[in-house]
Amino acid sequence: MSIHLPVDLSLVHLLIEILATLAFALSGLLEAARKKLDAVGVVVVAGLAAFGGGTLRDILLDRRPFFWMQHASWLWALLALCATAMLFLRARHFEVTERAMLWPDAIGLGLFSASGTRIALEMDMPAIVAVVMGVITAVFGGVLRDIVCNEIPRAFRDHRPYAICAFLGSWILVVAPSLGASDAVALLASAAAITLLRGIALVSGYQLPEWNSGHRSDR
Amino acid sequence: MSIHLPVDLSLVHLLIEILATLAFALSGLLEAARKKLDAVGVVVVAGLAAFGGGTLRDILLDRRPFFWMQHASWLWALLALCATAMLFLRARHFEVTERAMLWPDAIGLGLFSASGTRIALEMDMPAIVAVVMGVITAVFGGVLRDIVCNEIPRAFRDHRPYAICAFLGSWILVVAPSLGASDAVALLASAAAITLLRGIALVSGYQLPEWNSGHRSDR
Amino acid sequence: MSIHLPVDLSLVHLLIEILATLAFALSGLLEAARKKLDAVGVVVVAGLAAFGGGTLRDILLDRRPFFWMQHASWLWALLALCATAMLFLRARHFEVTERAMLWPDAIGLGLFSASGTRIALEMDMPAIVAVVMGVITAVFGGVLRDIVCNEIPRAFRDHRPYAICAFLGSWILVVAPSLGASDAVALLASAAAITLLRGIALVSGYQLPEWNSGHRSDR
Repeated sequence: MSIHLPVDLSLVHLLIEILATLAFALSGLLEAARKKLDAVGVVVVAGLAAFGGGTLRDILLDRRPFFWMQHASWLWALLALCATAMLFLRARHFEVTERAMLWPDAIGLGLFSASGTRIALEMDMPAIVAVVMGVITAVFGGVLRDIVCNEIPRAFRDHRPYAICAFLGSWILVVAPSLGASDAVALLASAAAITLLRGIALVSGYQLPEWNSGHRSDR
Repeated sequence: MSIHLPVDLSLVHLLIEILATLAFALSGLLEAARKKLDAVGVVVVAGLAAFGGGTLRDILLDRRPFFWMQHASWLWALLALCATAMLFLRARHFEVTERAMLWPDAIGLGLFSASGTRIALEMDMPAIVAVVMGVITAVFGGVLRDIVCNEIPRAFRDHRPYAICAFLGSWILVVAPSLGASDAVALLASAAAITLLRGIALVSGYQLPEWNSGHRSDR
Repeated sequence: MSIHLPVDLSLVHLLIEILATLAFALSGLLEAARKKLDAVGVVVVAGLAAFGGGTLRDILLDRRPFFWMQHASWLWALLALCATAMLFLRARHFEVTERAMLWPDAIGLGLFSASGTRIALEMDMPAIVAVVMGVITAVFGGVLRDIVCNEIPRAFRDHRPYAICAFLGSWILVVAPSLGASDAVALLASAAAITLLRGIALVSGYQLPEWNSGHRSDR
């Protein structure tokens, strides 16, 4: 009952969602700028980074309409963001922007993984499939961004825990019902755990162990 | 009433569609040749360039069957085109082929954008979504062609108005009903406006403004 | 009537399917290792190579749920395979692994092409579409693997018959009914023909003719 709360929870949720989507879109914007793409490329890459993960999940789960089809105002916001960035954002702002977005991005990782896993669980998917759908929701926007920019996706090669945080924390949603947790609590716990794991990874600089294959050549 | 017209309009429409699809397929063929792909690669890249945009639109809108599934003769035509090109087309013909295809390609840009937007509007999509679907129909065949050929898509980096012409002209279909225009007139006006805009861009050599981010390094 | 056979045919079929999927997954694993991907990249690329082709076919044909959603144990097997490989597989094992997988891969090419074509025929697709679906099932897992690894897909540029074997042999399923062959016999004949064609290509070292376009530059 949000009546008893000092602020409206759904508004808080919307603000967090906007902030996280902004972080994802900005990652696309900056990558597009680095690759010297034109306005069309900037909009497409930012859009893929922001909405690509959820869209891919929905294609795999055969859900329609997509979020951005139902709430078209997000597309207008994307266009406005890209126009603003191209007018005012300069290369000297890039690093500080990226640093400022690390935490919103971690929050988005938690929020979108947890909600993606939840959606798949509600469709009676097996636990491992639901968790993978959560990871895809949060991670594959960035993957599509990098593929279009002709890079091997960062999430697959930087040896930093990112998708793995999403994978681990999403299991909380799988086990929550048997612990008697309510839906809202489970979602919040899962998102918070993922964001926390990602935060620890960021602060500690932890790296995933190398596959010590002894492989040398880059072909 | 096409009875009163000197030629059968639907035949004209079919001929234009064939010419435009040929232009799209040839863009894939030439790119595949430049990348020294084998016969399989040539067919796949030409097919992606020709049918990839409409197929992606249909996946996003959840429409089935695809155009090339329903009219399988187009696949045979694609195979015949690729075989003919590999037998007779030589590198010295490439430039003249590309130049000859500039206008058919502009016509395809108009035709496929307008019809893609129309399809989405008929499914009651919001205006901005419908326009984006139109752009995807006409532009993303080339995008998929370039991704498979391991290039950053030309449409995202050449600073020439292409997708933008499609974006602008597709709005004619959105506003047409409130102007009392019939469906056929609106489609024709939208396609013609897009082709004209693209033509002006080609003739004038206009370039989109750079994102003056001051970014130097290519990473 | 498998009662009269010395071994259970469905078990044989399952074993062949496991072996073939293993070959596909290993091709992704080795490519990921060569590109020095981290654990996340290894799992994703191996998974794309193993399940990407069938998943793309099912998206195009609008079939749900996917194989790996219905039989989630395959995802666990994939994770186990990747973990085992990263613990025990070293660069000096790569070449021998690749060589050992050539025949299982050829068997997978036959099995997955034939079953993909069969699925499309059962959905009343035109013959050429069904054959293309068969090729996509067997070949596009490797295509997605290479795109994610930022390479032009090997199947499009190595001038070795691979997709072409699948294309040719899949027609057996199209003509079989008019020859009075039972479904099982047609499937077996098609898969065997494809594997045999691929085997001949491997043993003979046959190369597809170059497109003698006289094109020199690599741009």
